[in-house]
Amino acid sequence: MLHAPGDLRVEDRPDPTIEQPTDAVIRLAATCVCGSDLWPYRGIEQIDGPRPMGHEYVGVVEEVGSDVRHVRPGQFVVGSFFASDNTCEICRAGYQTHCVHRQPGAPTGAQAQFARIPLADGTLVATPGMPDDDLVPSLLAASDVLGTGWFAAVAAEVGPGTTVAVVGDGAVGLLGVLAARQLGAERIIAMSRHEPRQQLAKEFGATDVVVERGDEGVARIKDLTDGLGAHSVIEAVGTQESMLQAIRATRAGGHVGYVGVAHGVSLPGEELFFSGVHLHGGPAPVRRFLPELIQLIGDRAIDPGKVFDLTLPLDRAAEGYRAMDERRAVKTLLTV
Amino acid sequence: MLHAPGDLRVEDRPDPTIEQPTDAVIRLAATCVCGSDLWPYRGIEQIDGPRPMGHEYVGVVEEVGSDVRHVRPGQFVVGSFFASDNTCEICRAGYQTHCVHRQPGAPTGAQAQFARIPLADGTLVATPGMPDDDLVPSLLAASDVLGTGWFAAVAAEVGPGTTVAVVGDGAVGLLGVLAARQLGAERIIAMSRHEPRQQLAKEFGATDVVVERGDEGVARIKDLTDGLGAHSVIEAVGTQESMLQAIRATRAGGHVGYVGVAHGVSLPGEELFFSGVHLHGGPAPVRRFLPELIQLIGDRAIDPGKVFDLTLPLDRAAEGYRAMDERRAVKTLLTV
Repeated sequence: MLHAPGDLRVEDRPDPTIEQPTDAVIRLAATCVCGSDLWPYRGIEQIDGPRPMGHEYVGVVEEVGSDVRHVRPGQFVVGSFFASDNTCEICRAGYQTHCVHRQPGAPTGAQAQFARIPLADGTLVATPGMPDDDLVPSLLAASDVLGTGWFAAVAAEVGPGTTVAVVGDGAVGLLGVLAARQLGAERIIAMSRHEPRQQLAKEFGATDVVVERGDEGVARIKDLTDGLGAHSVIEAVGTQESMLQAIRATRAGGHVGYVGVAHGVSLPGEELFFSGVHLHGGPAPVRRFLPELIQLIGDRAIDPGKVFDLTLPLDRAAEGYRAMDERRAVKTLLTV
Repeated sequence: MLHAPGDLRVEDRPDPTIEQPTDAVIRLAATCVCGSDLWPYRGIEQIDGPRPMGHEYVGVVEEVGSDVRHVRPGQFVVGSFFASDNTCEICRAGYQTHCVHRQPGAPTGAQAQFARIPLADGTLVATPGMPDDDLVPSLLAASDVLGTGWFAAVAAEVGPGTTVAVVGDGAVGLLGVLAARQLGAERIIAMSRHEPRQQLAKEFGATDVVVERGDEGVARIKDLTDGLGAHSVIEAVGTQESMLQAIRATRAGGHVGYVGVAHGVSLPGEELFFSGVHLHGGPAPVRRFLPELIQLIGDRAIDPGKVFDLTLPLDRAAEGYRAMDERRAVKTLLTV
């Protein structure tokens, strides 16, 4: 529970129960702290009172409502941070975060032992059997940061032979590198000035690292791309500077995939017009990619769980927040 | 020549000559006034001194420079408002308006009897033989407004079965309707409150007309699309209001193709993020589409020349500007 900026407490609360016939209740196998959890933790995003935290989750289904048809107790499931019915026209087009029945932030309070998942049939994807323990972190990453990085790469139209630049070296940016590699990018330029993150970016498939930011960073990307800019740029920060850096690092006709939640961003229309880039992004429809990501993880083709560089028991969650706030950790996994 | 806002004069000037070995000089068959010519005419865009006007042209090649290989004197040609080499990596990707050797606004002064065209081999496309006189207006339209409306429809990913909304009922918006029809749209909603333009939109393929603007216009589009918004929206105005109207009328995962030259536009990052739309546009790479458009016009499959609702001889160009400025004409053709 976040009580105020910087005041994160682990408390006993009533177990969640089935409230709607389309709900499921899951027992968490693991949970984690998201970069976006830091906005309220840092006081940049207001909270109205004590807020249950966490929206990334994997676990075993405990109970389902009477209308749930596909998800069954005992299954190991992965879900996403938006509950969606997965049957409406928008879901079928692959935009489950904009489902006509969506429930943003659902579940609220996944940094817990149990969580209620609305629209369980649409939201949850079961793994084929019970996964090995060592795959749990990667499946947990699929629930948000991997799915978001993957969407960014897809939105940026990464494909075979492309040159990709990645703005942002948080978990999403790093997993954008992994996604770009999987999608066949020829060259992947990670923009990072933090040595351990550069290292992880390289492990995930980055071919180049650029330490400069802003206009200098853009100039370096141009240097590396015959003066044209990258085909695809992944934006995983959400500030004015990072958005402009992403747009300016992209060649005319190229694609920006932006997934950093926009804070105080205002895009100059004339510059955007004359840039000739494609812009697509927003809250990632992680659900679209879950079946494919679960398969890749099960096949051990990818290891996105490496983004967790700090593991703590749930009751030490406050330490996990602090480490991420101070950039001592990329991402904290909480064992339940 | 535009001497000052509202002060348009027809004057004798020296004939253009070959300046670069890659140039051609053409004798205009017809020329016209562009909506974008009205920005300096209205004083919204500054001019530094008397400016030769016009950038839309069709005509017969008079002379070519020593390095011109493909274009020959005597050919009837259509070009675009950006000279491009059509061989660089950006041109080959279909973004000739961003050619690494591009010359914006080339030719300057196409509202004339003769014009110099830089990078003739890349910029000009010859028609198969001399076109019938009645096809000249349509070929002239291809040079800018048709090519631009077509690009907007392509940028908005119009395809078979899609619902398309068009913001802007100028020549570009109207030809965006025509393009959407050709690209297989199932439903085309023209946003217009001017009866003659509504009529032309219907002739070009509009299935619905919405007279409301702003939030009310958006609400009408939602009403017509099960509350979801259009799959594709063409923006052909370039103001803050029209851009927001376009973004808000588009469903999540849908596409905005924007070609109205942005004037004073600033896009709110957070709204754009949560809209989940694709955004693409800018100065249209008309050259990409010219071969296809010339073919469709030659086959009499399309009749974009209908956008010219006022025809005047070149020496009465000032009247043509005035009629467009006062919205008495959609677009003025000037005979040479």
